[in-house]
Amino acid sequence: MNNRITSLFAIDFPLVQAGMIWCSGWRLASAVSNAGGLGLLGAGSMTPEILGEHILKCKAATKRPFGVNVPLIYSQVEKQMEIIIREKVGIVFTSAGNPAVWTPLLKQHGITVVHVVANVKSAVKCEQSGVDAIVAEGFEAGGHNGKDETTTFTLIPLVRQATTLPLIAAGGIATGRGMLAAMVLGADAVQIGSRFVASEESSAHPAFKQKIVETPDGGTFLALKKVIPVRLIRNPFFQKVQQLEDEGASADDLKMLLGKGRAKLGMFEGNLEDGELEIGQVAAMISRVEPAGKIVGSIMEEYDQARKDVFFNGMPC
Amino acid sequence: MNNRITSLFAIDFPLVQAGMIWCSGWRLASAVSNAGGLGLLGAGSMTPEILGEHILKCKAATKRPFGVNVPLIYSQVEKQMEIIIREKVGIVFTSAGNPAVWTPLLKQHGITVVHVVANVKSAVKCEQSGVDAIVAEGFEAGGHNGKDETTTFTLIPLVRQATTLPLIAAGGIATGRGMLAAMVLGADAVQIGSRFVASEESSAHPAFKQKIVETPDGGTFLALKKVIPVRLIRNPFFQKVQQLEDEGASADDLKMLLGKGRAKLGMFEGNLEDGELEIGQVAAMISRVEPAGKIVGSIMEEYDQARKDVFFNGMPC
Repeated sequence: MNNRITSLFAIDFPLVQAGMIWCSGWRLASAVSNAGGLGLLGAGSMTPEILGEHILKCKAATKRPFGVNVPLIYSQVEKQMEIIIREKVGIVFTSAGNPAVWTPLLKQHGITVVHVVANVKSAVKCEQSGVDAIVAEGFEAGGHNGKDETTTFTLIPLVRQATTLPLIAAGGIATGRGMLAAMVLGADAVQIGSRFVASEESSAHPAFKQKIVETPDGGTFLALKKVIPVRLIRNPFFQKVQQLEDEGASADDLKMLLGKGRAKLGMFEGNLEDGELEIGQVAAMISRVEPAGKIVGSIMEEYDQARKDVFFNGMPC
Repeated sequence: MNNRITSLFAIDFPLVQAGMIWCSGWRLASAVSNAGGLGLLGAGSMTPEILGEHILKCKAATKRPFGVNVPLIYSQVEKQMEIIIREKVGIVFTSAGNPAVWTPLLKQHGITVVHVVANVKSAVKCEQSGVDAIVAEGFEAGGHNGKDETTTFTLIPLVRQATTLPLIAAGGIATGRGMLAAMVLGADAVQIGSRFVASEESSAHPAFKQKIVETPDGGTFLALKKVIPVRLIRNPFFQKVQQLEDEGASADDLKMLLGKGRAKLGMFEGNLEDGELEIGQVAAMISRVEPAGKIVGSIMEEYDQARKDVFFNGMPC
């Protein structure tokens, strides 16, 4: 398989593992890269020192390309970027911020830059800022989310129309059929998060992984829209948030309830009652915890089969 | 083209025009049916007498099958069903209610029954109730919407897993590529609303049609969740709703603001400031008002091309 994304990253399959807080350290990223996809370290939950350690361990664990996802909203971005440049990481995904701020410096150092967007305007800005590819992420995605609530099905064709950049679809994708559907809508590749959170190599707490496997359709919801929209499992903490929101709570009220460290508490420490449990709607499709390499293999196998079905059977089902 | 849905309805293409309030009378339904799709009358905005007239006019305008969409939340459902049975309409889509209530009577009269769902549980209930096919509608759809906010990309594979019934995907679909993507996700057919609202034969007010053409991505939003979730264009009326909701307004407060006849005011009478303007996210993909038959033709042409692209080019773009 060979297209603009596999060439850009020098990988076998147009499949990116999302760089997620508390879940995607060197074990997961290297496993995905070794399987022929692109693994990403999630810097959003790492101090610069820990990020540096994960980069070294990831290099030791794979000879294949990998990258780092850097959410631009955190305070230590500058130091994280220093380490990324120093350690000569070849690929950086930036998110939750302005692509114009870091792209020029990263490009000067020969780094491939990808930026995550949730609307057309930001996609156009990416092109103007010189990024190499775009991730367009729909409303169904887990974790932080755009304000417009545009879904993957609607967003991908719109971004495809608006820019010529290589396009990676994210949000709602966990299978080979989903991958093919995203390609049909105009994507060159897909980014998959939730299914890799539930992988053996993910650093998510085992109790959180089990919770994902048990999550039914409708089991997640977008919360904290007045602070920063985030998709969470509807656990007791979520219920408290929702009640406050129904009563018209302000952003400050919600920040007070949120406090600090809720995501770590839920996702990394496994407190399923009081923690934030960030996951996508597609958790409802995930039925087991598997090795990341096996996930990559089965997605690509299903993708190939679906492609043949579309043509030979006329209809895929 | 031949599959379970084309056989069930005796139509040429697995493409259904959604039965929508204030937009889909006999002109639109007959135009879609004449073009080889399935046209639906939208009974939700018709008195039983007016529905009877539209059925007679639709019969006169097409020899092809057509149907009626009956939202089960309105007070005159019983009389509407009487007329549908009396006039021997062959196909009924029910929505916004329990499929167990009307399906047995309709089936006794030899009517093909389809029910609209937004989650897996309701899909299973449809199968138990003896309906002939399911419409699964995602969060991105216009108008009334499910409470779980599950998107088309996530919902279709989940419903496909849960039932063996023929499955029609709805929400976010306006093009041939969208149609193919929905098929890849597991649908046998698609239901398209927004693009037909912006057709020449639609009874929507010309000002509303023009507004759809101008709607950008992010131009719609789900509102009135405490009453009944509905996707609207973000016009001045929507802004008032949103402000009340942000302040924690109760369902009663919102009903008071809503009053009566808002949808008619906006969609049928063209008051773009004070009316409810129900449309899907995919409005952002719609760039002109066209004849309904031409819409059907161009969607099917794009669908065929996309299928060939998937196979011969390996990648669709």
